[in-house]
Amino acid sequence: MEEKKLPTKEENYSEWYNQLVLKSELADYAPVRGCMVVRPYGWTLWENIQKTLDNRFKETGHVNAAFPLLIPMSFLEKEKEHVEGFSPELAVVTHGGGEKLEEPLVVRPTSETIIGTMYSKWIQSYRDLPVLINQWGNVVRWEMRTRLFLRTLEFYWQEGHTAHATAEEAQAETLQMLNVYRDFAVNEAAVPVVPGRKSETEKFAGALRSYTIEAMMGDTRALQAGTSHFLGQNFAKAFDIKYLDQSNELQYCWTTSWGLSTRFIGAIIMTHGDNQGLILPPRLAPIQVVIVPIYRNDAEKSLVMEAVSRVSAELSAFKIKIDNREELTPGFKFNDWEMRGVPLRIEIGPKDVQNNSVAIARRDVPGRDGKSFVSQAGLENTLRNMLETIQSNLLETATKFRDDHIFEPKDYGEFKSIISEGGWAYVWWSDSIENEARIKEETKATIRCYPQEDGQEQGTCFYSGQKTNNKVYFARAY
Amino acid sequence: MEEKKLPTKEENYSEWYNQLVLKSELADYAPVRGCMVVRPYGWTLWENIQKTLDNRFKETGHVNAAFPLLIPMSFLEKEKEHVEGFSPELAVVTHGGGEKLEEPLVVRPTSETIIGTMYSKWIQSYRDLPVLINQWGNVVRWEMRTRLFLRTLEFYWQEGHTAHATAEEAQAETLQMLNVYRDFAVNEAAVPVVPGRKSETEKFAGALRSYTIEAMMGDTRALQAGTSHFLGQNFAKAFDIKYLDQSNELQYCWTTSWGLSTRFIGAIIMTHGDNQGLILPPRLAPIQVVIVPIYRNDAEKSLVMEAVSRVSAELSAFKIKIDNREELTPGFKFNDWEMRGVPLRIEIGPKDVQNNSVAIARRDVPGRDGKSFVSQAGLENTLRNMLETIQSNLLETATKFRDDHIFEPKDYGEFKSIISEGGWAYVWWSDSIENEARIKEETKATIRCYPQEDGQEQGTCFYSGQKTNNKVYFARAY
Repeated sequence: MEEKKLPTKEENYSEWYNQLVLKSELADYAPVRGCMVVRPYGWTLWENIQKTLDNRFKETGHVNAAFPLLIPMSFLEKEKEHVEGFSPELAVVTHGGGEKLEEPLVVRPTSETIIGTMYSKWIQSYRDLPVLINQWGNVVRWEMRTRLFLRTLEFYWQEGHTAHATAEEAQAETLQMLNVYRDFAVNEAAVPVVPGRKSETEKFAGALRSYTIEAMMGDTRALQAGTSHFLGQNFAKAFDIKYLDQSNELQYCWTTSWGLSTRFIGAIIMTHGDNQGLILPPRLAPIQVVIVPIYRNDAEKSLVMEAVSRVSAELSAFKIKIDNREELTPGFKFNDWEMRGVPLRIEIGPKDVQNNSVAIARRDVPGRDGKSFVSQAGLENTLRNMLETIQSNLLETATKFRDDHIFEPKDYGEFKSIISEGGWAYVWWSDSIENEARIKEETKATIRCYPQEDGQEQGTCFYSGQKTNNKVYFARAY
Repeated sequence: MEEKKLPTKEENYSEWYNQLVLKSELADYAPVRGCMVVRPYGWTLWENIQKTLDNRFKETGHVNAAFPLLIPMSFLEKEKEHVEGFSPELAVVTHGGGEKLEEPLVVRPTSETIIGTMYSKWIQSYRDLPVLINQWGNVVRWEMRTRLFLRTLEFYWQEGHTAHATAEEAQAETLQMLNVYRDFAVNEAAVPVVPGRKSETEKFAGALRSYTIEAMMGDTRALQAGTSHFLGQNFAKAFDIKYLDQSNELQYCWTTSWGLSTRFIGAIIMTHGDNQGLILPPRLAPIQVVIVPIYRNDAEKSLVMEAVSRVSAELSAFKIKIDNREELTPGFKFNDWEMRGVPLRIEIGPKDVQNNSVAIARRDVPGRDGKSFVSQAGLENTLRNMLETIQSNLLETATKFRDDHIFEPKDYGEFKSIISEGGWAYVWWSDSIENEARIKEETKATIRCYPQEDGQEQGTCFYSGQKTNNKVYFARAY
């Protein structure tokens, strides 16, 4: 069988990541530059993310729909900032059915323009509002430097698009969905994200305000893991989305959009993974418990396999997998499932059958410390508790790592050492697009977010020395 | 509010269909020719179809994955029949990121070529087989004459792609998935499909044998509602999908593919719908039970709404909707939910509150016959039974309609009257591509399927007079 050893995170973080995605069979390179194939193991992880997010969307009153992949080029041009932001990244269909098209169509990079066009048709009256629609689908952005999951030409995501009667409602929706993302990230993925507002420089093309959840990866770089945009009336004006209010006057709607993509899988990998491979949070793991039977001869085998089927029959509450591959050693299987990040491994050998016990190994605690021998009686409860322990341990470990790598530099000198040695800088910041650009130029660090909307306290900007109400996180980012 | 009246099926079946799709808000026309927007009501129906099919796929050992949207043109050219079949229908991306591409990319019309490429990389040994992967996604085919759901430039579907060690296994998989489709159509959608093999003329471009489920629409035309293809070694040879067998010899794999799309929504509409609108099968309906409160003043309103919330709280087993829109009359609401095909309507007025009863109207039995007054006690059970009754009534009605419109003409004269007056012809048929083409030319009827793989009986071909073992269905089709 294929050699499965990874480079370590310490020797080459980037190669550790690439190799891990391939060897754990989450994804593979597609034959088209920058595109990926999401393999069954990776797609099941995405399906689990989808289910839990979709439940949250439905609980907050949203419904799903599907809008077309192909958008007339002229639609994008209707919102000036939007087209400027996206035109360098477009894939363009110029021919259809053997003929040159009169107007080129772009493969959607995002759907504000086509959805706006439909909303202007569907929305007439205040009674039609709010419109709360989400779409699960694929989009294409012609990126130059690509990485599996993190930045691919085609990626999978959900994009919510809502229309409201007032600015207040739209702003509340924007923050509600940011909070849905935060809650999902923290409580399902055990990724302790920092929510906040984007700077003017980093906001979505066409938005009034963009919000983000920012995650710290294992190399301390930041990853934007989900965004929620308050679009004001920009798209409503560009696409003529209007409604008659209760006094029979025509008003423009206020709209929002928000998205989270397969990029989040990258966040999970780089938040929890170690040098043995993936560590998947139990709530999202495609396989929560793997059972490896251990035997040396046919007599032992029949004894052990009988116990395996008896034990597994009682574990239907979990996503379990029995690894009964004949041609592989237990040691190989252990490494294989560690690589794939399965939270719990159960081993059953002849001695375990005799003792009515099983051996359990925790993926998040390597070596002997993570191993225990427990009774087959009450195993379901034991596993449930262990999975919950792992889930909270992952969150705790990641939160500690994050907090250990956030610093509050007093001046630009300290700031530069923090950024270059690996960490986030949490600083007082007096808004300046020029200073932001200069810092990026000199240190590659960008403002990740303004964690508080309207700070009450005041401090001194670490860079300009000016008084300010704002604190921001600076970091190098993916 | 908007006028919701439909043309009748009798006066204009085609317009009845188009208007119904729009007025029931299943879908809308997109701004790009031939594309559709699937609105939330339609998409929820599709999600329900997806869930029940996906369960069946997983029960038969399949897993989901995602392959790229964009495929190099040269990949399609590797399988001769495949490229001939699909090249007139391609949408072509010629520019990406502002540059002309070296090789144009097609937006996938189907994924055999890109998936074949990946399989050739992933499959090495007999131990890797079978590979049983499905993908849910969108595809684009540049169709000239389009209809909402029935034939759109972009549509949504699932495509299964499997690779096997032997022809027998691949053939068994092909028939297994055909049977999964049949079972879904009959038992979930109450659409009594006829499964069978496609003629050489009608088979999938690149397949050795194609199988189909054929449904009869309300105008007696046939609709191909799902297909399953035995691809032989055609794609394995074109894409070099090989494995080392147990004697260490290189063998080509045997592959299959199978798909069912949003077209099936058209089948549901045209199998069950009537002049009042949609009739949705309870097992797939986005809303199974709608509750309409009825009151004339505030005192009645508070009485009634209290009962509505009490009653609805006990119906969490169903997909229910309370229509508490203030500005609309009960009559308008009745029409609205009839248009949308909700299987059961509950009315609660002051008298019902007094009597501890509710009025229930069945969508599948119009007028007084479908109306009953039942006790609020045990309502959950009452509704469960009624929904089951509706489900089987729909299947029974559709099966009777289908069987009433299948005829066995003795000669071509009778055949022509059947086809022109509306019906399917079930006939002995001696294979002849020329005769098949002549009949299509003269009557617009095509062979829908060979319902039995290897007939034991013998008969006389209605057209050529030759002896044959085959019977086929001929019909005009969508």
